[in-house]
Amino acid sequence: MREDLRRLADAVARRVERRLIEELRATPCEATAEQCTGDGLCAVRRPDDVRRVQQAGAVRVGASPGIGPVRSDLAAIIDHTLLRPDASREDLARLCDEALQYRFASVCVNSANVRFCAERLRGSGVRTVAVVGFPLGAASTHAKAFETRQAIRDGADEIDMVINLGALKGRDYRTVLEDIRAVVEAARPHPVKVILETGALDRDGKVIGCALAKAAGAAFVKTSTGFGPGGATVEDVALMRAIVGDDVGVKASGGVRDGETAERLVAAGATRIGASASVAIVSGRGGTSGY
Amino acid sequence: MREDLRRLADAVARRVERRLIEELRATPCEATAEQCTGDGLCAVRRPDDVRRVQQAGAVRVGASPGIGPVRSDLAAIIDHTLLRPDASREDLARLCDEALQYRFASVCVNSANVRFCAERLRGSGVRTVAVVGFPLGAASTHAKAFETRQAIRDGADEIDMVINLGALKGRDYRTVLEDIRAVVEAARPHPVKVILETGALDRDGKVIGCALAKAAGAAFVKTSTGFGPGGATVEDVALMRAIVGDDVGVKASGGVRDGETAERLVAAGATRIGASASVAIVSGRGGTSGY
Repeated sequence: MREDLRRLADAVARRVERRLIEELRATPCEATAEQCTGDGLCAVRRPDDVRRVQQAGAVRVGASPGIGPVRSDLAAIIDHTLLRPDASREDLARLCDEALQYRFASVCVNSANVRFCAERLRGSGVRTVAVVGFPLGAASTHAKAFETRQAIRDGADEIDMVINLGALKGRDYRTVLEDIRAVVEAARPHPVKVILETGALDRDGKVIGCALAKAAGAAFVKTSTGFGPGGATVEDVALMRAIVGDDVGVKASGGVRDGETAERLVAAGATRIGASASVAIVSGRGGTSGY
Repeated sequence: MREDLRRLADAVARRVERRLIEELRATPCEATAEQCTGDGLCAVRRPDDVRRVQQAGAVRVGASPGIGPVRSDLAAIIDHTLLRPDASREDLARLCDEALQYRFASVCVNSANVRFCAERLRGSGVRTVAVVGFPLGAASTHAKAFETRQAIRDGADEIDMVINLGALKGRDYRTVLEDIRAVVEAARPHPVKVILETGALDRDGKVIGCALAKAAGAAFVKTSTGFGPGGATVEDVALMRAIVGDDVGVKASGGVRDGETAERLVAAGATRIGASASVAIVSGRGGTSGY
């Protein structure tokens, strides 16, 4: 059985990589030198996504007093995030209140803070996301699964787990797959996002990490913890989207600080944005340009 | 009952701080300007510790070929540490083999790696230390307690947990105390070290963190995760030693890279050193001077 799992994981990883390369070779490219991202996964190759974000960009609604127009389309896909270990109750209360005010998809918090946030958000439609095995991904599988169950008991609606990075880089795919699968089982029917920590991985690692997350039943793959090297890039999001296909979400997180960056990540294939600067992203405050 | 706990914690914190201040005021100081650390907790005020480390410094034994004399006295109090999330099996095997070769007190690893290390070290007398709730300390109390139980099932001999930093900074001492107590109960009879992340705390936070750890039954207080701001300092170690008294250990960790630094921390009151550069510390390779 364990051997079967390993073979399955290897086969999935090989298959998705082969399909990706074939697809890229088969697609003629019209990108200019300026538009090209080098790996064929740029916005030019993905016109549907570009159109989608352009359409999204046209929708703006008024919101809270004093901050001008707010991007409700972006707000609805933002996990409003506070993962600093020294976050106080006041910080968490403000996080929840901002999420309610701007109608963010959720708040994303450490598991010790789930109960507090879930109670504050109860009945609002704004979800509570718990990170698990965060941020190193190096807790034991049993511990991750238990932390997941406890977070859901405390009111979490979604789980963002960190992949076992050591096992992934060591090509121990069975361990990676079983680790994710245990959390997916523990969370069921709640969705699980798998954080790859893309800034710590080479291209193979990202491809295989996505393949394993999908094979294990993850609802999303996610770029970064925000505590590791690097953050969300357009190239990584496009690669991840190409690997997981249309039935798995892609969450871009880490270093997303303005609406323009968020738009570019959505154009590349992100269906969720993780950010602490969410208010700046939707209101344009702190944004570099545009709106 | 919960109210009782809160009152107890507050009383303990107040008592230790008062006692500390009284002790300092009562002790005449002979430190020169150069020796003074500013808070009265310097080596001059602690001659016993200085003598202890001087005696320790006199003991040197030969060890593995090619590296010259090795400090066996320091080796015996070093937790040889590898907490990088991308550590491979090869890295962990090397960690264990170095711990065996130099007779370090233990290896200190993430909980996902406990089983591997404990099996490799079985019967050797070199212990396996698992970090729990690492490095943010922001996992739920139930999750930390479970991770502890699982680590011990997997072969851990000691637990290094991270304190709930948000609760400590928010002066929610009941939560801090119950969090530590749950892990102490889960680990019993194995010892628990409580990581304060001193670089993120002001003096009050360090004093109260130590008092709560002691009140909750911790075997050690420990300075730093190595992932947060700052690392072990002589001043923090001396302060922690003054708070916890002689029946609780103090582990200095974070940024300890040479034997001279390790000696200064021991002189200040550390009874355990956490380091990745353990081989350099005991062999003088990479050390700045002295031996």
